[in-house]
Formats: sequence, structure tokens, C-alpha cells
Amino acid sequence: MERKRILIDMDEVMADITQHFINWYKEKTGVAVPYEQLVGKHITDAFPEGHLIREFLYTPGFFRTAPLMEGAVEVVEELNKHYEVFIVSAAMEFPQSLIEKYEWLQEHFPFIHWQQIMLCGSKKPVSGDYMIDDHLKNLDFFQGHKIIFTAPHNANIVGGYTRVNSWADVKAFLLSEEKIQHKQAVAEGVS
Amino acid sequence: MERKRILIDMDEVMADITQHFINWYKEKTGVAVPYEQLVGKHITDAFPEGHLIREFLYTPGFFRTAPLMEGAVEVVEELNKHYEVFIVSAAMEFPQSLIEKYEWLQEHFPFIHWQQIMLCGSKKPVSGDYMIDDHLKNLDFFQGHKIIFTAPHNANIVGGYTRVNSWADVKAFLLSEEKIQHKQAVAEGVS
Repeated sequence: MERKRILIDMDEVMADITQHFINWYKEKTGVAVPYEQLVGKHITDAFPEGHLIREFLYTPGFFRTAPLMEGAVEVVEELNKHYEVFIVSAAMEFPQSLIEKYEWLQEHFPFIHWQQIMLCGSKKPVSGDYMIDDHLKNLDFFQGHKIIFTAPHNANIVGGYTRVNSWADVKAFLLSEEKIQHKQAVAEGVS
Repeated sequence: MERKRILIDMDEVMADITQHFINWYKEKTGVAVPYEQLVGKHITDAFPEGHLIREFLYTPGFFRTAPLMEGAVEVVEELNKHYEVFIVSAAMEFPQSLIEKYEWLQEHFPFIHWQQIMLCGSKKPVSGDYMIDDHLKNLDFFQGHKIIFTAPHNANIVGGYTRVNSWADVKAFLLSEEKIQHKQAVAEGVS
């Protein structure tokens, strides 16, 4: 019995890019933008000088220094024992992010093998049983179970997705006793 | 009507890595290994000092300077007009190849948008209608039509694949009048 496949996004899911933007913006401009001000907005529209956000994205080191989302390491490590995990991240728009994302994963998620990493432009051709992502443009093409990870830009979206607000929510949903036991029962040939 | 999706491999398919190995090996050792000597062998077993081949793979610039496979540019450009093309290349084992493969594509295939590029470890989660690849480990997981591009290491494999020996063969198979006309007919709603 094959394990179910989960595709996990990096930015705003494993890496707390929103907090990273807030921190960098404060460092460059002195302005502390509160998280609440970002809710419901596209990220470049949410900061007073939105062009700085795009500059950050092209700055060497931006992705390499991103902070971890709370609980990500522990839950991904656990998922990796029960599911076939692939880290699928859009990186091609910012080519310097390719090596930075690889190195960031090596540092924080050393249990993720290089065979489990995909850096892409579009996620359209990638298939699996579950996708955890913050972007509708990725979830909407996906044929499996769509799990939307809350980020300011998607906070007001309703319907069609299983919403998780944290890695604790991911754990409760995908590592519930029921899901794990069912998987084991299937693996043992019990119907 | 959606266009059919083709996944195209880079090494030994778009890039003539065998010739690149032969050239580098001659430069480093003075020994010219004839192509015929490589047939039917794994690449590291095919050269007298096989460890040099792995060294090449880790050498900065190796992938960036790979020569083009004859006819690749013209045929991929044409395929790109009639199919949904994704370039899917295993790169994670050699992380320095990530940016090199991206830049190599930018130079030689500027008509390929960054959204069409996927650099991965395993190709197992990628789905499509056709896969053009030289490795069984990629083709055998694939659910669509498997097209094996001849390379020395796969030359003796028979059965289960559509074999192409060149980009002229790819053109004859995927850009035949029959395939293109059928596609247009479907697009126009003609049965």
C-alpha cells in the first residue's frame, strides 16, 4: 500500500514570509506595519511603499534568511513518517531563490531528502492526495484535497478548501488518530 | 480544449551530456573515448576513470556549458506552439546545477517561460500526456505516453516505450500532420 502523497508549499507555509516582510520593511523604512493591516490585501498593496516588497524578493539572501513558521519543523517531520512528502515551491520567478530555498531546507529540514524537493514555476503538473498552499492559483489546479494555509492575502476567501491557521491545525487534520489508524489498517489489508 | 501536456527532460535530451562528458574527459586526461564504447553502460562505468565523471557533475560550470542536442531548439520551439510544454529536470542532487540549468535554458530556449520550468529530485509526482526522457526511473513512474530518448546507457532497452533517436524523430512523432490536425479538429469540436 503506497503512502498518500502530500505536496507542501514553502513561502507563507513552511517559511513565515509575512513576518519576514514586516521585519525587513521596518529595518529599511523604520515603519512597523501591523499584521492586521495586511489582512485581505495582496502583499504589494499592503505596505505603504509596495515597490520595496518586490525589491526584497530580488535581494540576495531574502529567502535564505526567512524565519520558520511556528511548528513547521515538528509537524513536517511527523508527516514525513506517515505520508509521501514533497516540498513544492515556486522559485523560478526569482532565480536567486533556487539555491537559497535548497539551502534553507537543508538547514531547517535536514530530514527532507533532495528527492523530495521540487522548485518550479507553475505547480499545475504536480499531482498528489493533499496540497498545503496559501495560493488559490496553486490549489485551484490541484485534483486532490486542497488545504489552504491562512496568510493575510487569503484570509477572506471562503469555500472549497480545508482551512488551516497553523501547523497545529495541520497536525490535527492530517495526523489525527483516525487518519493514521485508517492508513495502518489499509496497509495491513484490513478493510 | 486544453492542449496536451509534454514533459521534456534536459540532460541527454535537450543537452548533449554524453558529448560533454567525452569532451571534458579528453581535456582532463588526453584520452578520447569513442561514443561506441559507452553503449549499454552506466556512464560512470563507461570511462576508464569513472570517478572523474562524478567530479565533472559537481564542477561549477559543467551544466552551464553543456552543448545542445542537435535539433532541440527548433523542435521544442515548434512543440511549444502546439502543446503545453514543461521542462522537467532532475537537479537537486547537484545544487549548483539549479541556477546553471535555469541560465542555460534562458540562453538557448528564450521562448520557454519560467512558469514552464521544473527542477526536481524525483519526477514521480509530475503528470502529463507525454514524457520525453532517457531514464527508465523517470519513465516507469509516468502514467502517460513514455518516449525514451536514446542515450548510450539505454540503447539496449526494448519494449514499453516509444523510442526516438533524435529530435527529428520527436518531430516526426509529435508534430506529424495527423497529430496536429487531430488536435485542431478536437479544438474545433469536430469528433
